[in-house]
Amino acid sequence: MPGNSFGQLFKITTAGESHGAANIVIIDGVPAGMPLDVSDLQTDLDRRRPGQSKLTTQRKESDIPQILSGVFEGKTTGVPITILVPNKDQHSKDYNNIKSVYRPGHADFTYDKKYGRRDHRGGGRASARETVVRVAAGAVAKKLFSFYGIKLRITGYTKQVGDVIANIPDPALVIQSDVEKNDVRCPDHIAAQKMIKLINQMRKEGDSIGGIAEIVAVNVPVGLGEPVFDKLKADLGKALLSLPAVLGIEFGLGFAAANTPGSKANDIFKKNGDKIITTTNNHGGILGGISSGMPIIIRCVVKPTSSISKKQVTVSSSGKKTEVEIKGRHDPCLLPRFIPIAEAMVAITLADHYLRMRNNKSS
Amino acid sequence: MPGNSFGQLFKITTAGESHGAANIVIIDGVPAGMPLDVSDLQTDLDRRRPGQSKLTTQRKESDIPQILSGVFEGKTTGVPITILVPNKDQHSKDYNNIKSVYRPGHADFTYDKKYGRRDHRGGGRASARETVVRVAAGAVAKKLFSFYGIKLRITGYTKQVGDVIANIPDPALVIQSDVEKNDVRCPDHIAAQKMIKLINQMRKEGDSIGGIAEIVAVNVPVGLGEPVFDKLKADLGKALLSLPAVLGIEFGLGFAAANTPGSKANDIFKKNGDKIITTTNNHGGILGGISSGMPIIIRCVVKPTSSISKKQVTVSSSGKKTEVEIKGRHDPCLLPRFIPIAEAMVAITLADHYLRMRNNKSS
Amino acid sequence: MPGNSFGQLFKITTAGESHGAANIVIIDGVPAGMPLDVSDLQTDLDRRRPGQSKLTTQRKESDIPQILSGVFEGKTTGVPITILVPNKDQHSKDYNNIKSVYRPGHADFTYDKKYGRRDHRGGGRASARETVVRVAAGAVAKKLFSFYGIKLRITGYTKQVGDVIANIPDPALVIQSDVEKNDVRCPDHIAAQKMIKLINQMRKEGDSIGGIAEIVAVNVPVGLGEPVFDKLKADLGKALLSLPAVLGIEFGLGFAAANTPGSKANDIFKKNGDKIITTTNNHGGILGGISSGMPIIIRCVVKPTSSISKKQVTVSSSGKKTEVEIKGRHDPCLLPRFIPIAEAMVAITLADHYLRMRNNKSS
Amino acid sequence: MPGNSFGQLFKITTAGESHGAANIVIIDGVPAGMPLDVSDLQTDLDRRRPGQSKLTTQRKESDIPQILSGVFEGKTTGVPITILVPNKDQHSKDYNNIKSVYRPGHADFTYDKKYGRRDHRGGGRASARETVVRVAAGAVAKKLFSFYGIKLRITGYTKQVGDVIANIPDPALVIQSDVEKNDVRCPDHIAAQKMIKLINQMRKEGDSIGGIAEIVAVNVPVGLGEPVFDKLKADLGKALLSLPAVLGIEFGLGFAAANTPGSKANDIFKKNGDKIITTTNNHGGILGGISSGMPIIIRCVVKPTSSISKKQVTVSSSGKKTEVEIKGRHDPCLLPRFIPIAEAMVAITLADHYLRMRNNKSS
Repeated sequence: MPGNSFGQLFKITTAGESHGAANIVIIDGVPAGMPLDVSDLQTDLDRRRPGQSKLTTQRKESDIPQILSGVFEGKTTGVPITILVPNKDQHSKDYNNIKSVYRPGHADFTYDKKYGRRDHRGGGRASARETVVRVAAGAVAKKLFSFYGIKLRITGYTKQVGDVIANIPDPALVIQSDVEKNDVRCPDHIAAQKMIKLINQMRKEGDSIGGIAEIVAVNVPVGLGEPVFDKLKADLGKALLSLPAVLGIEFGLGFAAANTPGSKANDIFKKNGDKIITTTNNHGGILGGISSGMPIIIRCVVKPTSSISKKQVTVSSSGKKTEVEIKGRHDPCLLPRFIPIAEAMVAITLADHYLRMRNNKSS
Repeated sequence: MPGNSFGQLFKITTAGESHGAANIVIIDGVPAGMPLDVSDLQTDLDRRRPGQSKLTTQRKESDIPQILSGVFEGKTTGVPITILVPNKDQHSKDYNNIKSVYRPGHADFTYDKKYGRRDHRGGGRASARETVVRVAAGAVAKKLFSFYGIKLRITGYTKQVGDVIANIPDPALVIQSDVEKNDVRCPDHIAAQKMIKLINQMRKEGDSIGGIAEIVAVNVPVGLGEPVFDKLKADLGKALLSLPAVLGIEFGLGFAAANTPGSKANDIFKKNGDKIITTTNNHGGILGGISSGMPIIIRCVVKPTSSISKKQVTVSSSGKKTEVEIKGRHDPCLLPRFIPIAEAMVAITLADHYLRMRNNKSS
Repeated sequence: MPGNSFGQLFKITTAGESHGAANIVIIDGVPAGMPLDVSDLQTDLDRRRPGQSKLTTQRKESDIPQILSGVFEGKTTGVPITILVPNKDQHSKDYNNIKSVYRPGHADFTYDKKYGRRDHRGGGRASARETVVRVAAGAVAKKLFSFYGIKLRITGYTKQVGDVIANIPDPALVIQSDVEKNDVRCPDHIAAQKMIKLINQMRKEGDSIGGIAEIVAVNVPVGLGEPVFDKLKADLGKALLSLPAVLGIEFGLGFAAANTPGSKANDIFKKNGDKIITTTNNHGGILGGISSGMPIIIRCVVKPTSSISKKQVTVSSSGKKTEVEIKGRHDPCLLPRFIPIAEAMVAITLADHYLRMRNNKSS
Repeated sequence: MPGNSFGQLFKITTAGESHGAANIVIIDGVPAGMPLDVSDLQTDLDRRRPGQSKLTTQRKESDIPQILSGVFEGKTTGVPITILVPNKDQHSKDYNNIKSVYRPGHADFTYDKKYGRRDHRGGGRASARETVVRVAAGAVAKKLFSFYGIKLRITGYTKQVGDVIANIPDPALVIQSDVEKNDVRCPDHIAAQKMIKLINQMRKEGDSIGGIAEIVAVNVPVGLGEPVFDKLKADLGKALLSLPAVLGIEFGLGFAAANTPGSKANDIFKKNGDKIITTTNNHGGILGGISSGMPIIIRCVVKPTSSISKKQVTVSSSGKKTEVEIKGRHDPCLLPRFIPIAEAMVAITLADHYLRMRNNKSS
């Protein structure tokens, strides 16, 4: 059954495979009159682009998007927007040796069992290549907030790689220009150097390493999230867990809440000017599934890249024991390129819930 | 915008508040011919029921469900099933003092801002009372698997309370009858006693404590989960994050993957009889968003109960500083009653994806 | 797969059978703060109620609704509203003789083939009994417009019964109080007497007769309807064709457009005060799938009641030829009770699209 | 709010305007392993193509589709299929004179009011140009039935143009090759010549004419359609009423049922070999909203083309009275090209319900 659409009012439907002709997204629900241009999409696409640094895959994709519908004389018309990003630098032959082999950690086995066949070239639809149009849609979602005069700021960064943990005194103060200063996208520049060293070491060993991303949304309107199933944390959780390689997610205090008493976990309300805020932010910006206006704080754990060049034991599709060395061009650590993708999914989810909230009020 | 439905083919729509007349669920999509009786629902409802032990709230609800539609002569007819659970032991007066006060950690503030008004009695729709019908629907979902001849087993238990961590050698071997042997629903009976002691201590102090639940699904068919947005981990994540008090979720290796190299995280495939399995289960039963047939392993962190009797500083709805002591009857630790609720959401999600998978095959 | 929900933002989910315990609707998406009381529902329920005149079935149902959730202190809270209407006067034994016989014109055969079994008592879910909660939901939808200060007026009436056609000089001027003056709900009171005579004659013969309903919506906001699939005419069409016994629907000029040239069918725009209107209304209030502000004019054809007491040839479920005389209490003509049901579906659809439209504007 | 998707399990999402770069459809839900090639799409696209005869617009579009995703080595993979049809022969300048004029019978006024702006070139999204990808998706839907071994045959034809009514002794016996023998797509070849003469006369007068299409589906599996809102007639109705210019729809006996007694309208069941059929087909193949296995018979009324070259009075967007003569290239009668479009929507709806039905059975 279909599963390639996300969102209710800001709704995206995507298609495309790693080595197909193109990746495509139809964005339905953007209001009319919003200025939109390919240049609005390029910045985030460049941040996601393969080959941008030594830490990432050397696949060369310019990732220049085409807007095929929904924009007239530089502004949206209220009808669906189509964005197409061509695939150019596919090396499909690199994948011939895994045509009938199940790569460990990959979706080869489960796709084969589910569909009875699969497009093995570059992982087909299971490849993270599909996220290129999520990033394009995320750029549109970010634009929607500025169109409505909301100074929403979504900032993601690498919080941890292997055993190197960044020291971030206040997540809400991190700014993107500082994050972009190093290849690993970590605003703690000392930790960043250690992370880069670790990633390079893993690459040399033909191995890979996992990490944690932290994504922060500041100036979120109060009231986003729909009880009971479409709580904001539920939809943000779905959005981020729908990304390849994400094994877990936490909000605010997160897993540390297990060993915290209520008297410490509860954030105290206080008046601040004409607003009500909390003195601490253990709740991570969401209370009862609804945004409180405090910064939304999310952490995602990203597993180490499954594609490693080290020799691994596995089975063929017929169940025969074999070995595999994965060729192709892969990121030794997914975190640097994961950051803009995660930001995009947060932007899409918040845009959807912003439009949804506008229906709850009578005025 | 509506947010009270969950699922596509096994679809539930719920309604009801903590101190309203009843909680109701309409379950749409159950195939015809499945035997169903209120007794099928009672076991799990009793496991969730308030007042079942000293560790839980002393609100008295018999929680006897009524099936109002969809069943004829003991079997489903293919039309929607309505289950109603009356509310009986509401003490609405206990909540008069919080009518215009924002309780820390609660949804009072966000509901007020979102809707402009709220049903303050017992937390209204934000109360976990609404989960009673999720549990009823979960029992129907479990029944659906046995109807299809699938020996699915979903077992939840308390993994951690405060600093007490259970030792579970193999999650896939835990059985419910063993879990039910103590009030905290922890199959490590030594850890259970420490947990119970800790919870009782917190209650005496007028405080509360958080914890971690682990939910395991065994004998899951291969192929559940729909790329790219409705991956099984995405929908399970949404299902569990839609529950009150859940601040995080992880699958398989989870957050530990941040500090694991790919060569160790990747699970090796091997042949086992006529099936292909993995020798380890770091992937937690889901690869590429699709079930692999290995046990699904999920952990959820549940925050400490926000309702504590200790005096807390807060503000009134007009923003005036005040203090609040929360009356009413509350669980000092949510974990024991969270277990059957979490199992229900896992069952509902798997049932939905099981029906969805049946459409992907041509034969 | 589920098919018991209708609408996107004003969303209803219904359940219940003719001879089950009750019919239930959950209405999700009603904004907070709207006054709502059972008395708001009773008027339309009484207009639909069986036994209200000699022209209708003599089944006795008081149809007194219960509001089980979503309303607090007389106003909606923004969470889902549950309305339950009990079934009281079922004569299930009347249906024993058709347990294994396929009644001509009924859903007995198709339900049996689809589901493998059916609830034969009173037709189960295929009975028009399920429309009782559509009418309740329609009353809520009508209330929503007045809550928003829109003087929407939806008026249905009987346009034709058999060969008797009412003369209605201007559909937009018909008012409900005039429609309610006779049992057949026809504002042409001379035609009404002929219709009543014809219906009584058909009843005496153990037969039934069809007819046409006209439904008019005045003061519809401009802009309702979403290109390209959710055009207003498409969703109104679906809403009305989802009602039992409806075999066709037309808007404005309708089927007469087949023999009309464009120069006559096109309605001419002109300025009228500060509004733009059309001088004629062949388009029936919808242009390009979007409401134009002109009255929406719809006609539905309703087939003659399938349940007739005349002896009919048919087959049993095993395929054996047999005869059937249908007992039970049935309407000899469906039109009088169809009117409030059709109005309700129009109200629900317009309410949904009104909430949907509020998202298209940036301000 | 989004309205550019149709279907639940066979789900299409479309985008594109009349004079934009291309029209695009993403088809989600097609099972894996189905052979698919652009040649499968071309036949129906050619039947819909502008410029195919003297009766249609002279816009030249080759309408050669590109399949951008979802097909690998000639077969579907289970992931979404993207089909793109470029726009080539736009004459946007033809529309400069209507930039700020509301054409009678068109969506100019309602789009402007709804969105605050519009793409006036060729009618933008309101143009029937968008149906090109509906036809492509319809071809995929038809293929799906043959993939499942079902000999479904969907045949549309022109039943009426102006006052010329075709004589069709048995709709279920009409075959497409016979329909295609004349430009007006009418299997009554004598009536066809009169229709062609009438259409040519209207074109010479700068006018247009309406008509009725009849669409017949033979060999439909029993059991399609989901009570209560997604009845097959409701979803077919929505599908066809979502097409531009359709003002009404009827099934089986249709509007004639108004003047028919139940004893004549009811179709009598009888055994025919190992199947149960009805001796007549007044119900048009759908009983209780569920397909009965008898031929589905649908008639749609299509209004005369709104674009006529005769001078018409109207208003400008500022409300000023003006006159308009519509340039551009238009069909004087929509019926010939409407036929393949209507067939496509029927195919898409039946494919969706076929996949939906597969979930109702336990085996």
